[in-house]
Amino acid sequence: MRAVVITERGGPEVLALREVAEPSPGPFELLVDVAASALNRADLLQRRGLYPAPPGAPADIPGLEFAGTVLSVGEAVTRFAAGDRVMGVVGGGAAAERLAIHEREAMRCPEGLALTESAAIPEAFATAFDAAVLQGGLASGQWLVVNAVGSGVGTAAVQLARALGARSVGSSRTPTKLGLARGLGLDVAVEGDSTALPAAVREATGGAGAAVALDLVGGPGLAAMLECLRPTGTLVLVGLMGGVEADLSLGRVLRQRLRLVGTVLRSRPLEEKMALARAFEDRVVPLFEGADAPLRPVVDRVLSWEAVADAHRALESNDSFGKIVLEHR
Amino acid sequence: MRAVVITERGGPEVLALREVAEPSPGPFELLVDVAASALNRADLLQRRGLYPAPPGAPADIPGLEFAGTVLSVGEAVTRFAAGDRVMGVVGGGAAAERLAIHEREAMRCPEGLALTESAAIPEAFATAFDAAVLQGGLASGQWLVVNAVGSGVGTAAVQLARALGARSVGSSRTPTKLGLARGLGLDVAVEGDSTALPAAVREATGGAGAAVALDLVGGPGLAAMLECLRPTGTLVLVGLMGGVEADLSLGRVLRQRLRLVGTVLRSRPLEEKMALARAFEDRVVPLFEGADAPLRPVVDRVLSWEAVADAHRALESNDSFGKIVLEHR
Repeated sequence: MRAVVITERGGPEVLALREVAEPSPGPFELLVDVAASALNRADLLQRRGLYPAPPGAPADIPGLEFAGTVLSVGEAVTRFAAGDRVMGVVGGGAAAERLAIHEREAMRCPEGLALTESAAIPEAFATAFDAAVLQGGLASGQWLVVNAVGSGVGTAAVQLARALGARSVGSSRTPTKLGLARGLGLDVAVEGDSTALPAAVREATGGAGAAVALDLVGGPGLAAMLECLRPTGTLVLVGLMGGVEADLSLGRVLRQRLRLVGTVLRSRPLEEKMALARAFEDRVVPLFEGADAPLRPVVDRVLSWEAVADAHRALESNDSFGKIVLEHR
Repeated sequence: MRAVVITERGGPEVLALREVAEPSPGPFELLVDVAASALNRADLLQRRGLYPAPPGAPADIPGLEFAGTVLSVGEAVTRFAAGDRVMGVVGGGAAAERLAIHEREAMRCPEGLALTESAAIPEAFATAFDAAVLQGGLASGQWLVVNAVGSGVGTAAVQLARALGARSVGSSRTPTKLGLARGLGLDVAVEGDSTALPAAVREATGGAGAAVALDLVGGPGLAAMLECLRPTGTLVLVGLMGGVEADLSLGRVLRQRLRLVGTVLRSRPLEEKMALARAFEDRVVPLFEGADAPLRPVVDRVLSWEAVADAHRALESNDSFGKIVLEHR
């Protein structure tokens, strides 16, 4: 089969479509004909040699999320059959013609969505759902605050908040991204970085504060994200583009009984990935279906995987809004 | 009735036994004849004008925990009757002849313990139980790490860990306190501050790390407490004697999916105080009962409340091990 291969550490030019060995699925696994995969920043880091694939994932084939059609199933598989449309998050290797995935990690694609749209769902929406809802406990009537709201996880979180009856305050330094996030359901748009959020959250919530803060940036701005929280509120730390050091005011953490939770999907053990996939299929996939579906994938562009180097360049430019999807043909 | 009164802000000499108005219990409340109360650092802060009592608690009568006998009950009370021995945590006013408490906040005293012993239980053990077990999720087979292990909450946490089938590593700068903590079930005793703990925890756990860290100190040492944790471990921040600023390495928090939870009992809303009292009566009070009870109150000394100023001086000296109890007679 063919796959995108990281031929050596380096820039986008090190990526090439190559012939590689086909995966051999086990008894509980699906063999999937991958129609499309989407890019993530981890792919860029992996290409540069800064974020090795976890054990069990191919070392030199990027790709963390995909959508495709089941080609064949292992003898113990009960949830899917050949021909089913599935999507999912994997530890790597999604940028390939075929991949193997445990049936309990795979999720059905929403009805009515193209596979190129479905491929834009898993990583961003599973991360946002896990962080805001499962770990942060976001529920109806509450406020969510998000920085980097124009990112994949940010736009997914804003849509989820709206779909669950919650409201959101989000920041971005790019006015056009803020406008697009508004179109996806962002209630209060704040131009700037995390430090601009506490005042906006206070105003939006009548001084009460947000129940959940999604920090997609980290770094010194984390202190401002904590300031946005109401008593017993939870900050979920999802990204570190802003840096790895933060000064914390412990007095507020203690008195307001705040929670700070770090999270990452890729390194989780299999049972947790399965549990998340099952909760996501149950609670989120239906929200992508129907004429007035509250959720929709956010796709910046779809490129042929022949143009994977261009796709990486586009993601590195930081100008994209939504997922950059590779169509595998 | 008589009560310990903070006659003005200041040193221990501002404390005096005075006649004050008796509380008038509501229909769901117990009127308790307080036999003994125990001192907490919050009493010292309140006396110095640095920690005002919360709304609903008397502004000038200290005392956060007590044990006594029910004198009479409101018309709607069903859980207790006159003559029952009860103990509890209150927002203030425990250093008085009588107090009123909602029946769902009061807890029965363990059978076989004197009231002066029971008075040493509520604050330390409820804080330790809530922090380590309810918020940290400590369970059998796991490791707990505690700094300031010679403190009231520290010794309570060590005993609870042992009673639940968990093990503990604890630090103190005072060798005699470490020895006493060992006698209460501390598995690994480390002389020093929080920074001495990560290496000891690694050794004790074969590199795995602790499931729960109880940080009773805060300040810069919090980073070392986080280093003690295994992936998905929880640090519960209970005290700030070490300072309110901490540098956090967010990379580890995110990659290891750590949790940091701030907590304080005194400012909680009534429903949470009730829920904790009920869980404590259900799950912890029985552990103080019987000939081989796994838990025991740690009492440094019992003084007559006539000597309340001396009691404050003793707590301020930092030389006590266990609770300083005032007997109200």
